[in-house]
Amino acid sequence: MPYETLSTAHCFGGTQGFYRHESSSTGTPMRFAVFTPPQAATRPVPVLWCLAGLTCTEENFSTKAGAQRRAAELGLMLVMPDTSPRGDGVADDAAYDLGQGAGFYLDATQAPWAANFRMGSYIADELPRLIGAHFPADMHAQGITGHSMGGHGALTLALTHPGRYRSVSAFAPIVAPMQCPWGEKALTAYLGADRAAWRGVDACALIADGARLPDVLVDQGLADNFLAEQLKPELLEAACAKAGIALTLRRHAGYDHSYWFISSFIDDHLDWHAARLKRPAV
Amino acid sequence: MPYETLSTAHCFGGTQGFYRHESSSTGTPMRFAVFTPPQAATRPVPVLWCLAGLTCTEENFSTKAGAQRRAAELGLMLVMPDTSPRGDGVADDAAYDLGQGAGFYLDATQAPWAANFRMGSYIADELPRLIGAHFPADMHAQGITGHSMGGHGALTLALTHPGRYRSVSAFAPIVAPMQCPWGEKALTAYLGADRAAWRGVDACALIADGARLPDVLVDQGLADNFLAEQLKPELLEAACAKAGIALTLRRHAGYDHSYWFISSFIDDHLDWHAARLKRPAV
Repeated sequence: MPYETLSTAHCFGGTQGFYRHESSSTGTPMRFAVFTPPQAATRPVPVLWCLAGLTCTEENFSTKAGAQRRAAELGLMLVMPDTSPRGDGVADDAAYDLGQGAGFYLDATQAPWAANFRMGSYIADELPRLIGAHFPADMHAQGITGHSMGGHGALTLALTHPGRYRSVSAFAPIVAPMQCPWGEKALTAYLGADRAAWRGVDACALIADGARLPDVLVDQGLADNFLAEQLKPELLEAACAKAGIALTLRRHAGYDHSYWFISSFIDDHLDWHAARLKRPAV
Repeated sequence: MPYETLSTAHCFGGTQGFYRHESSSTGTPMRFAVFTPPQAATRPVPVLWCLAGLTCTEENFSTKAGAQRRAAELGLMLVMPDTSPRGDGVADDAAYDLGQGAGFYLDATQAPWAANFRMGSYIADELPRLIGAHFPADMHAQGITGHSMGGHGALTLALTHPGRYRSVSAFAPIVAPMQCPWGEKALTAYLGADRAAWRGVDACALIADGARLPDVLVDQGLADNFLAEQLKPELLEAACAKAGIALTLRRHAGYDHSYWFISSFIDDHLDWHAARLKRPAV
């Protein structure tokens, strides 16, 4: 088998599974979680990629977002990957925002990260091949969402793979890593000091450089501790306005950066994706 | 303050909080979680006690059950306590099913447990006083539910406090600790070898001895690894039938003992409790 099943459990009439495989992209074992809705028993179902944030694994979104209930109603498969390669032989950093648990959904070019930190290829190429081949997934109906660093991943993967993801959303995303401390630190480490190389993994720079997205839903809590320094949704708002991208940016008073925020609005995101993924492709 | 707020977060228009206080029952600091629904901004709301199982803390049900969404719609407060006293000075056992994380919602009488393991008094007396005094709770409208060891707690607390809990339910409860390995081990340690002393903390024995419950909802997965040896819902079924207690026992093919099972059916339990708690008291 190209992957190993670690556990499965019945959940809302479907199956919540945890899996592991040897990744050729990262050169390490990688874990991922999949929720397969009940509708998949009879036909391939649309796939929503759910990318987690700094420090997270495949367990955070699967366990805490509360997405399975509505996904089961809508017939959406949820694919929830880990956020980086891991292991004793894999480069790491003592800080939470670099190295293991902080892959930033890009392919590193700099030592010591380049050897394993190839989460861009992993999420965009390798894992979709595995899912398409071995799960009851309709790979012509893919959407993508994510939280924080995972929101950055969702936006940049959608921008760099036009036509691949028919629906896009994010929770409290890093929209401009070139313009925030998390991003500047990670991009310097993974891609080197030349900021020109960063533009290909920065959502706002990609849009300024001509990349385009489908209409996109972004939710942002106004009590989020990272709002002003790291997240800066106003930069995405300006970039989308200038480029004519239809951005629905909802600002929520009182909500923070946690999964308590995500769970409160996940149903809206699932509805957003289902409405676009169940439409016939253009 | 009689308690300390560890964290709060906006969640479904209400507040998910984590708290700590010095318990006079257990002689230790105790943590608990509360979900306060949006309706509590204007009036006291019904309270549902949610008791967790072996190895759990106040975080398991709050994080994994996915109860807040429907509780916010229904206007139910959820109180989610820890499952035992904890700390370096507190007795413990290397096994997962005795000592810290395994309080069994009773007051121990045997050394070394009697000093701190007084979860019966804590859940039935001390914590309700704190909740009633400091949270927007309608203490005339209390319900109780729980999972596994917590289901045992819900059933036995309801049976031993007639009129207190106007609604009762459980997920995969231990219904007869006197007749299963988990229970025999814990009751021997906490209450001593005299099995007569066990009858007051065994749901089936309590019913046989004349204690009564309101109508009760129990969900049980048929792929639960603990079903045949530890849980034995047929014993509760027989006890309720004999006593004329209206038991709704639902057996679910394919579901296991995990929170994936609980989350799949939690809405039904919340609806069950709301229907009874929102009715005028008899």
